[in-house]
Amino acid sequence: MNHIKGKQSISFGESPYLISSASVAGSKEAEGPLGKLIDMINQDDLFGEKTWEEAESRMQKEACVLALGKAHIRPEQVRYLFGGDLLRQGIATSMGVEELQIPMFGLFGACSTSGEALALSAMSVAAGYGEYMLGVTSSHFGSAEKEFRFPLGYASQRPLSASWTVTGSGAFLVGTRKSHVRISGVTVGKIVDFGLKDSQNMGACMAPAAADTILTNLEDFGRSASSYDRIITGDLGYIGQSILFDFMKQNGYDIEKNHIDCGMKIFDQDTQDTHAGGSGCGCAAVTLSSYVLPKIQKGEWKRVLFVPTGALLSTVSFNEGASVPGIAHGIVLEHC
Amino acid sequence: MNHIKGKQSISFGESPYLISSASVAGSKEAEGPLGKLIDMINQDDLFGEKTWEEAESRMQKEACVLALGKAHIRPEQVRYLFGGDLLRQGIATSMGVEELQIPMFGLFGACSTSGEALALSAMSVAAGYGEYMLGVTSSHFGSAEKEFRFPLGYASQRPLSASWTVTGSGAFLVGTRKSHVRISGVTVGKIVDFGLKDSQNMGACMAPAAADTILTNLEDFGRSASSYDRIITGDLGYIGQSILFDFMKQNGYDIEKNHIDCGMKIFDQDTQDTHAGGSGCGCAAVTLSSYVLPKIQKGEWKRVLFVPTGALLSTVSFNEGASVPGIAHGIVLEHC
Repeated sequence: MNHIKGKQSISFGESPYLISSASVAGSKEAEGPLGKLIDMINQDDLFGEKTWEEAESRMQKEACVLALGKAHIRPEQVRYLFGGDLLRQGIATSMGVEELQIPMFGLFGACSTSGEALALSAMSVAAGYGEYMLGVTSSHFGSAEKEFRFPLGYASQRPLSASWTVTGSGAFLVGTRKSHVRISGVTVGKIVDFGLKDSQNMGACMAPAAADTILTNLEDFGRSASSYDRIITGDLGYIGQSILFDFMKQNGYDIEKNHIDCGMKIFDQDTQDTHAGGSGCGCAAVTLSSYVLPKIQKGEWKRVLFVPTGALLSTVSFNEGASVPGIAHGIVLEHC
Repeated sequence: MNHIKGKQSISFGESPYLISSASVAGSKEAEGPLGKLIDMINQDDLFGEKTWEEAESRMQKEACVLALGKAHIRPEQVRYLFGGDLLRQGIATSMGVEELQIPMFGLFGACSTSGEALALSAMSVAAGYGEYMLGVTSSHFGSAEKEFRFPLGYASQRPLSASWTVTGSGAFLVGTRKSHVRISGVTVGKIVDFGLKDSQNMGACMAPAAADTILTNLEDFGRSASSYDRIITGDLGYIGQSILFDFMKQNGYDIEKNHIDCGMKIFDQDTQDTHAGGSGCGCAAVTLSSYVLPKIQKGEWKRVLFVPTGALLSTVSFNEGASVPGIAHGIVLEHC
């Protein structure tokens, strides 16, 4: 029996399993701290395609095929796919998953999309709407720079508060078949807007949303911060993390010891010149698949709160002077 | 007990109710055949805002507030919101629903988004994830022309196969509280790609997806086309409709007598110069709320298959020579 918890959460009765996952990433990610843990790497970041957008679609497809292959599941066995990306009209996903021919729900949650996809996959499995669901998301440095800033050829400079979009995709197979990781609950995020307008400081824009979702999760489930071996945000980066810590302290929680941010984990700040850290839908997805899930599988971490964070903006909203609100979804992952 | 049906469908045991809905639209829609049925109209299409994008957000908010108001439900009683639009990074939705502070899932399904939102709302209610869910979507002629073609000031001409983006938003409250309309089932669409590349003929691009979803729905539920009083597509328009009829005939179904297309219903082709018909997320949503639902409420139509259709493209995918695949989701609406 599934239970509604508190204001925004669901606790699953028969918790769905996170059966398998896969990560695909680019050359810079390969050189980073998680390089050796990533399933598939491409050195020219084009993945055999002609454009950055096609390359991003290709990563999504490869991630899906790999995640399915690891579990020996064929695409036609997957009931529904939940996927999204950062590009306008989600074309990386539409063109990427098309060949799989799985009935699909297109999502947009900015860099929180992996959480959105995992939440809806788990909710659908727990409701009995199918045996297997697939969640997938991606980002690509080349396509994201073109989408949000300037084409790479312009060699634009960026402030130190800016983050570096991860070239990567992560796919996650959720279902009823046993594995060592369960999705025991979700906390669906609200849009949180502190009025910040600096799209080159997305960590600051997203930190209030991360805090809101973490605090709501702890309250909804009646847990302390130490109930989680790790609380893992998506891509707050160095500046966003310090703001998150401040918010949490103001509310009586110290999460400094058990907090990890995927944006700080995927690149080496000292040697890779990625400024505030990694970002993009692929940042949290690749880190979850390559680094976080293996630790939960082994039982090194028993319970983790995964909180990918998204900044809600477009070049149009930015140019028209709108603020950059944030959203974050919380996924409770447990070893079993 | 909810049941998985056939390849892509769900039949709900305790079917969720479509409790209330609201439509908001612009001046051209007000002059059209449905003008008098639309809840809120604005004559300058700016809805008191300064930009087309803000105007679109405002429409979404007004539609949500109206739909909630009709049912005497406060935003804090709504468990989750499912919403999306056509603009890059879904900003019409993010900025539109922000003030309601309902935990939300952002969607992208192009003009099929109303179906996606209704499907996920119904799936969540039927799973017991909350008493009330809100689905919302929108499009705006001014923001869509800027996003996909040229700013209105350029006064671009368009081919006769092009459709006219509806300025409008529809919001739908789905829940456990009784009304005269139930969502008894859904058929989740696949991406269907016939290789067409003409973004100025979206009806042709989407017709194969509409046919695929309708045929799958009939097969999954074991129904004949006449089991539905009406089969209502989103925005195929005149050209798309004739292609849909051909596809259906090839598969042994004649739906000419009970088919309606929202894109052909919302504007008067003879007097409004809208070429192939209306389109945009708002087209199907406004037509459903203002014209279709009242007929189901009254029992004039007992069972309707609502199939909003989306064309999956962006200016980038179009300029890079990609095809324009389609997707369509089927929602079974029944009088009760």
